[in-house]
Amino acid sequence: MTSYITIFDYLGVALFAATGALTASRRQLDILGFVFLATLTGVGGGTVRDLILDVPVFWVQQHAYLIVCIVTATGVYFTAPLLESRYKVLLWLDAVALSVYAVAGAQKGFQITGSPVIAILTGAMTGTLGGILRDVLAGEANAVTRKEIYITATVLGAATFVTLRMLGVPVLIDALLGGCVAFAARAGAILFGWTLPAYRARAGRPTDQP
Amino acid sequence: MTSYITIFDYLGVALFAATGALTASRRQLDILGFVFLATLTGVGGGTVRDLILDVPVFWVQQHAYLIVCIVTATGVYFTAPLLESRYKVLLWLDAVALSVYAVAGAQKGFQITGSPVIAILTGAMTGTLGGILRDVLAGEANAVTRKEIYITATVLGAATFVTLRMLGVPVLIDALLGGCVAFAARAGAILFGWTLPAYRARAGRPTDQP
Amino acid sequence: MTSYITIFDYLGVALFAATGALTASRRQLDILGFVFLATLTGVGGGTVRDLILDVPVFWVQQHAYLIVCIVTATGVYFTAPLLESRYKVLLWLDAVALSVYAVAGAQKGFQITGSPVIAILTGAMTGTLGGILRDVLAGEANAVTRKEIYITATVLGAATFVTLRMLGVPVLIDALLGGCVAFAARAGAILFGWTLPAYRARAGRPTDQP
Repeated sequence: MTSYITIFDYLGVALFAATGALTASRRQLDILGFVFLATLTGVGGGTVRDLILDVPVFWVQQHAYLIVCIVTATGVYFTAPLLESRYKVLLWLDAVALSVYAVAGAQKGFQITGSPVIAILTGAMTGTLGGILRDVLAGEANAVTRKEIYITATVLGAATFVTLRMLGVPVLIDALLGGCVAFAARAGAILFGWTLPAYRARAGRPTDQP
Repeated sequence: MTSYITIFDYLGVALFAATGALTASRRQLDILGFVFLATLTGVGGGTVRDLILDVPVFWVQQHAYLIVCIVTATGVYFTAPLLESRYKVLLWLDAVALSVYAVAGAQKGFQITGSPVIAILTGAMTGTLGGILRDVLAGEANAVTRKEIYITATVLGAATFVTLRMLGVPVLIDALLGGCVAFAARAGAILFGWTLPAYRARAGRPTDQP
Repeated sequence: MTSYITIFDYLGVALFAATGALTASRRQLDILGFVFLATLTGVGGGTVRDLILDVPVFWVQQHAYLIVCIVTATGVYFTAPLLESRYKVLLWLDAVALSVYAVAGAQKGFQITGSPVIAILTGAMTGTLGGILRDVLAGEANAVTRKEIYITATVLGAATFVTLRMLGVPVLIDALLGGCVAFAARAGAILFGWTLPAYRARAGRPTDQP
């Protein structure tokens, strides 16, 4: 059982590391800038999750995660110039990464606390915080200020996983379905601009200062 | 004794959550954007405090704090359009929140370490970090770059609480007086533009590059 | 042995605190703004390091570190107006601070985990995160988006320290050489604009949107 989830975990780290490296390429950083931003994005969300759950930080125990980030960053450094549109690749990689990582985060939170509420929250945190760190440091618009569905996708994926988990469905199926739900929501946002109804100030009210 | 402080704690979380939700309303986010920013602002400062004090993170133990954030965010989502000036409400809620939370933070730091220095620091951290996170993520001016009294108010409130605590004054009175001092300082800053003397470069010196 | 490293540690905190205070002076903050930004910059990197290594946060154990930050901030508040170019002083202080702190961070990581990979990472983290926090909060360009060698310097310094440590060279020599390597790399970047080859999009490819 844990082995499936471990694969999700490594996949999430590698995918997020790739988005960090692609962001570095858009900023024209040097190779160590690639590695730094890839590592921060790759392990950032999971690090905060582990600190909050009060368990040993996963990559301090397993250096392989760091190696994954370094290798991914180096690979992107040499292959990114070949890409037609790095922005599009980044957008889709990020979508897959958050889906995978939302499930891995929910699984760890659920396993350790047994609480569905905490599990959904750790899923959302793990799925979004790495990307938020990446965007704040690189000075790009971050998830919080994006209009289309983003955080929502991680919440839906984590909630699906936890619900199936509580119904006793085998963990691999929970993880795959959870990941698919998250990805479908985010993909819809990218392709069709799916949004939840956004808050609107009441008509006739003065605009907010300042 | 703890029960009074617990009320302060919940109040601080709810108030900060409301400021996060109001910031979400100014950014026209969707309902989950409200919940995310409200939760981050509501529990952010206390989370960092607990990690640094090496005690279990408060909301992992007590899910009720998360429920408070979710309910507050939802409430603000539906009522914010009715407000005349969301900016003013945000400013004043933030003032009450930081006063309440500075005291709650100082109390926890003092109880756990017994050190007045650490207690004042955890008070200031708990009172300001949630709001700083909120402002950095939403791309607004944060406490560090504000000119009027802000961090100072939390330091004064925490110091008042700790001083009274060490003099053996009952904890409810310490908390109320500490909160009032912090609020008075911040209110003065909002109403009358109170500032500490700001640093000034010496006249005749060339302006700083770049 | 520890005593040498402890001196490095205090020195790193004081130097970074000074850069935080100088940044506060560039933003014309008040005295508590100086203390806040100095403390955050001074202890920020080491705090994250300690949380991740799961050891008690260093300044909670030893309040003297906080006193160092407060005294440094106050000193800078009164002397900064006398400086010809605060920007240049800030740049060089930052260079010395990251060199000193990269070594102190690597030493702690190595001592606790025994892993050279983690040690280099904690060195880089300790040397850069305080400054990154400072720059993000003050709204300045941060290390990640700088073109010249910065993170690279901390990696080189930490790697030098760890290599010598593993060869059994006395710790004082390891620390001094590691610090010199880091400083030389950063100084070259400041004086001569040293960079690693930056990533370049392939010619003939369309520019990235958006």
